[in-house]
Amino acid sequence: MGLSVLERLTVDLGERSYPIVIGADALADAASIRAAIRGRQVMIVSNETVAPLYLSALRAVLDGLTVDTCIIPDGESFKTLASYEAIMDALMAHGHNRTTTLVALGGGVIGDLTGFAAATYQRGVDFIQIPTTLLALVDSSVGGKTAVNHPRGKNMIGAFHQPRLVIADTEVLRTLPERELRAGVAEVIKYGVIRDAELFEYLRRECSAIMRRDSVAIGHIVARSCEIKAQVVAADERESGERAHLNFGHTFGHAVEVLTDFEWLHGEAVGLGMLMAADLSWRMGWLDIAVARRIRDLVESFQLPVIPPSNRLAPEDMLAIMGHDKKVMDGRLRLVLSRGLGHAVVTDSVPIDLLRKTLVAGEGLCRG
Amino acid sequence: MGLSVLERLTVDLGERSYPIVIGADALADAASIRAAIRGRQVMIVSNETVAPLYLSALRAVLDGLTVDTCIIPDGESFKTLASYEAIMDALMAHGHNRTTTLVALGGGVIGDLTGFAAATYQRGVDFIQIPTTLLALVDSSVGGKTAVNHPRGKNMIGAFHQPRLVIADTEVLRTLPERELRAGVAEVIKYGVIRDAELFEYLRRECSAIMRRDSVAIGHIVARSCEIKAQVVAADERESGERAHLNFGHTFGHAVEVLTDFEWLHGEAVGLGMLMAADLSWRMGWLDIAVARRIRDLVESFQLPVIPPSNRLAPEDMLAIMGHDKKVMDGRLRLVLSRGLGHAVVTDSVPIDLLRKTLVAGEGLCRG
Repeated sequence: MGLSVLERLTVDLGERSYPIVIGADALADAASIRAAIRGRQVMIVSNETVAPLYLSALRAVLDGLTVDTCIIPDGESFKTLASYEAIMDALMAHGHNRTTTLVALGGGVIGDLTGFAAATYQRGVDFIQIPTTLLALVDSSVGGKTAVNHPRGKNMIGAFHQPRLVIADTEVLRTLPERELRAGVAEVIKYGVIRDAELFEYLRRECSAIMRRDSVAIGHIVARSCEIKAQVVAADERESGERAHLNFGHTFGHAVEVLTDFEWLHGEAVGLGMLMAADLSWRMGWLDIAVARRIRDLVESFQLPVIPPSNRLAPEDMLAIMGHDKKVMDGRLRLVLSRGLGHAVVTDSVPIDLLRKTLVAGEGLCRG
Repeated sequence: MGLSVLERLTVDLGERSYPIVIGADALADAASIRAAIRGRQVMIVSNETVAPLYLSALRAVLDGLTVDTCIIPDGESFKTLASYEAIMDALMAHGHNRTTTLVALGGGVIGDLTGFAAATYQRGVDFIQIPTTLLALVDSSVGGKTAVNHPRGKNMIGAFHQPRLVIADTEVLRTLPERELRAGVAEVIKYGVIRDAELFEYLRRECSAIMRRDSVAIGHIVARSCEIKAQVVAADERESGERAHLNFGHTFGHAVEVLTDFEWLHGEAVGLGMLMAADLSWRMGWLDIAVARRIRDLVESFQLPVIPPSNRLAPEDMLAIMGHDKKVMDGRLRLVLSRGLGHAVVTDSVPIDLLRKTLVAGEGLCRG
């Protein structure tokens, strides 16, 4: 790939601060990777789809260290305590000690799973994230949330544990399926809506460049998304206040995921959830209908679904699931809404009749 | 039991500070227990030995809350990821949310296991410790270390997570087997040796009161032990420096545990390990032989073993295991030794020939 320019952000969390190296060929940035490894042992955790593509390149960068691997089957259904135990077994079988470094090479599942293993192996060891999906690059690689699923609920078992380094190699997205790329963009749109009208505009303008995976365009949206998330997380590491803004579209989206039996990707559900949040914000009198329409148009321009499938998303079912969401406090539904591009607000005083109107809006969502 | 006087200590860890309530009948201190519970849901984790003795008394104190239970079989062999998963299943099956409180009612196994579950359920919920063994009262209930065992190593999976409250009810020790009581005293002797010559002297004077489980004597040694551990932990929460002093006798003791196939209780192994550490301290020229003898006499007065079983503790085997201890850094064996009662030191410069002399001393340990 030759010489490439890497951007370097810092997630500022005091003594747990860490850098994010962003750019084409960041995976070959041996200096940054070696500097983040304090011991002599490394355990790479990856999946059966990603490992054949990038494992050998990563091994080359780690030449001279003791490198073991743990390869998990691909998919959300393997984000389990059983996979977690497989990582623990591999660490123990190869005699990894407290100075080991775990490296997560994969999407959100591998990142969350490996992070949880790192958080709890010998009460906490170092780890490095190398996300290989757009969603993982812009979302789960910043924030320190690690988790596995329980059969009765997603991300129910986990810990907060910050990585030592995130390598955001924009070239790895060339091998990402198009549907996953689109779904990842939904989270980028979210950052625009809650914090950055300029990013929102950039997405409108550079839609085709992003979809053809242009390095510069991808690098820009990844960097800006990580910057925004890093700022929010630094201000509120444990999610008591401002961090809730990151859930814009997610309480609706989670209900969509459940009611579509997780056939919709997370980003697809969040895309539709954002339209519901925007529609409700308009009904609350907080958002101009023209802005709600712009949000809808942007989601649609990335060919993400914008019409709720009425046969699956019955309003009463949506309400029931939203009422059981993790983010519910003391029985009151808390929602993140919008008061304009770049301006999110948390509210627990949404009139139920307005919420119902949004849930039955169907094709009329964000159309006024 | 009528009116009883409860002592209240605070473990000072900033916003993670918590109280320890010590005394006869502390388990009935509803005010402290209710004050530590922030939500409406409680999950009591206990074992099949302890639950029949104290579960109903605890339930009475929690009257009006939603109380579920998870009862694990008794014993170190159940301190596993499988038991941890059983707790997670119970929490999910009963719909416990982020505001739940886990209550550990039992010895060190239940405390460590429940603490790890609390550290990781929904990325961390509250927990309360109610230790029912002397060892758990004076050791594992202070410090925030939580863990389960891996088949290849003890406490290899865990997290740091502080309780909201520790209830140290001295009356529960009335049902503790005598061998476990003696083993618990070994850790109290340790606190005397590393930090408090007066506590050491108290143990000498009140040996018989302690062994007949006199409330005042037990209350005193529990309070003083918790105070010392709380001070050390507050000064060094993550075990980088001073906290290592708590390992006095433990590197030797761990090797004794392994070579006796864990037939010796932890406290018994630590008792002998302290004599080895004292003997080596004398050989280093750091400890008067008279003081080493006093340590030996005190251990012996509680009928803890003071003579290494030569057929099981071959010096080369001891050395091999000590060299693989978790506390080894960069290949150098770090030991905690004594420079007098109340004065512990960490060293990584013990001449191997002196260490060997201690390991072959046999009956001559601490005799000069």
